[in-house]
Amino acid sequence: MLLSRLRETVRSAQVLTAPEDTAAYLTDWRGRFTGRAQAVVLPSNTHEVAAIVSVCAEMRTPIVPQGGNTGLAGGATPDPSGAAIVLSLKRLNRVREIDPINGTITVEAGCVLHDVQQAAYGAGGLFPLSLAAEGSATIGGNLSTNAGGTQVLRYGNARELALGLEVVLPSGEIWSGLRALRKDNTGYDLRDLFIGAEGTLGVITAACLKTFPLPRSQVTALLALDSVSAALSLLPLAQSTAGPTLTAFEFFSIRCLQLVTRHFPQQRSPFERAHAQYVLLELSDHEDERHAAALLQSLAEQALEKGLIADAVIAQSAAQGRSLWMLRESISEAQAREGKNIKHDISVPISSIARFIDETDALLAQRFPGIRMVTFGHLGDGNLHYNVMPPAATDEDRFFHEQQSAVYECVHDQVARFSGSISAEHGIGQLKREENMRYKSPVEMNLMRAIKRTLDPLNIMNPGKVI
Amino acid sequence: MLLSRLRETVRSAQVLTAPEDTAAYLTDWRGRFTGRAQAVVLPSNTHEVAAIVSVCAEMRTPIVPQGGNTGLAGGATPDPSGAAIVLSLKRLNRVREIDPINGTITVEAGCVLHDVQQAAYGAGGLFPLSLAAEGSATIGGNLSTNAGGTQVLRYGNARELALGLEVVLPSGEIWSGLRALRKDNTGYDLRDLFIGAEGTLGVITAACLKTFPLPRSQVTALLALDSVSAALSLLPLAQSTAGPTLTAFEFFSIRCLQLVTRHFPQQRSPFERAHAQYVLLELSDHEDERHAAALLQSLAEQALEKGLIADAVIAQSAAQGRSLWMLRESISEAQAREGKNIKHDISVPISSIARFIDETDALLAQRFPGIRMVTFGHLGDGNLHYNVMPPAATDEDRFFHEQQSAVYECVHDQVARFSGSISAEHGIGQLKREENMRYKSPVEMNLMRAIKRTLDPLNIMNPGKVI
Repeated sequence: MLLSRLRETVRSAQVLTAPEDTAAYLTDWRGRFTGRAQAVVLPSNTHEVAAIVSVCAEMRTPIVPQGGNTGLAGGATPDPSGAAIVLSLKRLNRVREIDPINGTITVEAGCVLHDVQQAAYGAGGLFPLSLAAEGSATIGGNLSTNAGGTQVLRYGNARELALGLEVVLPSGEIWSGLRALRKDNTGYDLRDLFIGAEGTLGVITAACLKTFPLPRSQVTALLALDSVSAALSLLPLAQSTAGPTLTAFEFFSIRCLQLVTRHFPQQRSPFERAHAQYVLLELSDHEDERHAAALLQSLAEQALEKGLIADAVIAQSAAQGRSLWMLRESISEAQAREGKNIKHDISVPISSIARFIDETDALLAQRFPGIRMVTFGHLGDGNLHYNVMPPAATDEDRFFHEQQSAVYECVHDQVARFSGSISAEHGIGQLKREENMRYKSPVEMNLMRAIKRTLDPLNIMNPGKVI
Repeated sequence: MLLSRLRETVRSAQVLTAPEDTAAYLTDWRGRFTGRAQAVVLPSNTHEVAAIVSVCAEMRTPIVPQGGNTGLAGGATPDPSGAAIVLSLKRLNRVREIDPINGTITVEAGCVLHDVQQAAYGAGGLFPLSLAAEGSATIGGNLSTNAGGTQVLRYGNARELALGLEVVLPSGEIWSGLRALRKDNTGYDLRDLFIGAEGTLGVITAACLKTFPLPRSQVTALLALDSVSAALSLLPLAQSTAGPTLTAFEFFSIRCLQLVTRHFPQQRSPFERAHAQYVLLELSDHEDERHAAALLQSLAEQALEKGLIADAVIAQSAAQGRSLWMLRESISEAQAREGKNIKHDISVPISSIARFIDETDALLAQRFPGIRMVTFGHLGDGNLHYNVMPPAATDEDRFFHEQQSAVYECVHDQVARFSGSISAEHGIGQLKREENMRYKSPVEMNLMRAIKRTLDPLNIMNPGKVI
C-alpha cells in the first residue's frame, strides 16, 4: 500500500526495494549501524519530497532522511524494525543560484560539499566548510548535523554559514525560508531550529549559504611544543598577531604523529627529534604569499622567544603545506589501521583543555591500565577528538565489550564537570541519544521534547534519533 | 493581590507603582509608544526573575521585559490596558566571568552594552557589537532584538556573538544554557529561539558572549561616488583587497550629508564638491597603522583607476577618523532636527540594492510628489535605513496622518518583491506586528504561533508583540 502510494508520487525507478539496491543506504559508511526499511526513496525535487512526506504522514510511516551517508552517529540509518523509509536527498543536487555580489550560493540539499566549494570557487568565492568527508557528504547532511571541520575558528560551523533554508515540514508543507539576507529580524529564528536537528523536525531541501572573498594565499606551519599548556598560551599570541587571517589552529600529540608515520611510511615528521605536542597553523591572507609567510615567521619567532614552542617548520611551498596538513588529516585513518578505538568527539572551554586532558588521562590510566590515548583536534575551537585505544596486545573485541561504556561514562562525566559538550561536531544520532539524556537538564530535555511534539506530532521524522 | 505577592517575592523597593517612578518605563525613548502597567518590578538576580515570572504565571499577569528601553519598535513598552507588569532587567548588571583564553565574557542581561565592551577591552579583548544606543542599551535587549549595528559585516549580528544563554521560561523555570563552547551539537538550538524573540518566549537573564582579539589599529576613509551601483562594485573590490580587515562598509547619500552639515555646522564635508553618494570604509588591522593605511591607500587607488570612486579622503589620525564616522553617525539626529520622517529599516540582497533604490525612489516620487529621500545604511550587510521626509513646506502631521501607511505599504511591497526583510535590525515589537503578518507565509506564521503556544501556553510573555 505504502509502496504503491509512493510509486504514484514519484517514478517507480525512484523507489528502491531490492536488497542489492537498498543495502548501501541501510548501513552507515563505517559499518557501525545497520537497519532495515520498507524502501529507499529518491525524490528529485522539493515538491516530490513534500509529496512523499505527505504520504508518510498519512500512513504514519517513519522517514529517515539521508544525504551522503557519511554521518558518525548513525543519524541517517534506519532502525532494525523495517517500518521506516529512507528518504535520500541525493538527487536534489542543483546549484540554484550564485550571487557573487551578495556573497551567497543557493544549493539543494543533495549537493556534495566539495561541489558546493567548487561552485563557489568558480564564481570567485570561498565556501569555507571543510571536512574529511567533503567528497561525499552532502550539504543537507552538513546542515542537519551542524557540521564543524577545520575552518570553524575563522568561519564558524555550518550553522553560521547558512542564511536561509527551504524545509519540508513533517506535515508535508514546504517552508520557503530561502532568504539571502545578512540581517532579518522579523520573527522567530526557525532556520536554526532545523539546523542541527538531524532530520527530526523536517527535511532540509535547499539552503542559501554565505560565501567569502577568496584569500590570495595560504601558508601553513607545524610547531612542536612540550605541552598542551604551551599550545593554550600560543593560541592568544597567534590570534593577536595574525587576527582573522588565522584560519586553522589544529593540534595532535606525539602518539598521533607516530601512528601516521607508522601506517603511512611515505609521510614523515619534519622534525629531527620527537616532541610531546604539535600545532598546525594556517594563515589565509588577502595580500600575498610573502606577506603571509612574514607574518607566520614573526609569530614563530615570538613563540620561540617566549619559550612556547620548541621548534617550527614553515611550509615553503603549497606542496609542503599540503604535506603538513596530511599529517593532521591522516590521523583518523592511521588510527583505524592500528586497530579499534573508542572515540569521543567532545568540547570544553578552550582555557580548560590542558587541565581536562591531564586529569582525564590520569583518571583513565588509573581505571584502565595500559590504555593508549590518541588525542588530537581543533584546539582553536575547544574541540578534541579524544580517542582511547585498548592496551597493546589486548583482545580488542573483549575490551570493547567489557569496557566501552565505562570509558564513555568516565570521559563524558569529565566533560560534564568541565561544562563541555559530549558531541562537539558529530551530532547525537542514535549513538549518543541515551548518553545525552544523562547530561541534559530536565528543563532542557522538556523544551526539546515540546518542540519535537509541536513540529512533528505524529513522530514520523527520524524517530529514535537525537531525543 | 499581585502587588502583595510581588512584594513578598522581592523587596518592596523593587516594586514601583508611583507614577513618577514608573513613567520612564512606560514610554519608549523616542516617545512613540506609551502604555500602562500594574507595576514596574526590578529583580536583582535570576532567582528573583524566576520567582516573579512564577507569580505572574499563576496570576496570568502579562510580563513586558525591558532592558535599556532604547528599542525602536515598541517591543519593551506595555499596552494601554494596564494589565501587565514591566520587568526591568537593569539590576542584573554583573559581569560574571571573563575568560580571555576562551575568548568569552559572561554577563547578566542588564549590563549596558558599552560596559560589556569596556569589560572585554579591560581583559584585552574586543566585544564588537556596536550601535548608536550602546551607552544605555542593555545586552539582554540587544540579544532579544538580535541587534545589528556597524560591525555586522565582519562580526555578525548579536545572534552570532552569543554562545550560551540563561533564560527564565514562561513557567518560571530557569534554563541554564550558559555554555562557553564554540562547538556543541547535542540537540536543538534553543539559544537562537530566544535570541530575536523580543521577550515573547522567555526572559534572557544572562549570556556568554564571544570576544575577539583586539585589532592594533583602525583606519577610516570616506569615498565619494557617483552612484549606488558604483558602491556595489566597490564592495567586492574592498572585500578581496582587505579581506576580513574590512570591518565597516557604510553608505549615505548627498542629502544625508547636507542634513548633517546643516544641523551640525561644526561638521563639514571633507570634499570640495558634492557627490551623489558616499561610502565610509573602516579597516581593522592586527599589524600596525602603517600597514592598514597602505592597504586602504592601495584600495582607494584601485577604485580610482577603475572609475568606481570620484574622490577619497583617508583619515590621517584617529581624530580625523572619528570625524568621518561622526558624519555617518549624525544622520539620524540631523534628520530628527530637520523634522519628522517615515523610517524603514529594511534589507535586500546586496546585489539588488541599486535596483531597489532606483525603482522605489521612482515609485515614491510618482505617488508622493515632492517627498525627500534620506537613504543611508550598512551597505555591506544589505541593510538600508530608507527614510522618507515629507515634501518641503508641507504640514508634517497631516502628511503623516494621511500618507504614512501608504508609504509603508509601498516601500514594504517593494521589499517583498526584492525578497528582502521589512525589519533588518530593529525587530518587530508592536510597530510592525500587523505589517509583518502581511508578508510572512501562512506556513511560517503557523510555525511561529505553534512555537509561541508551546513555550508560552498562557500567553503571558510580552503579548501583542512580534506575533
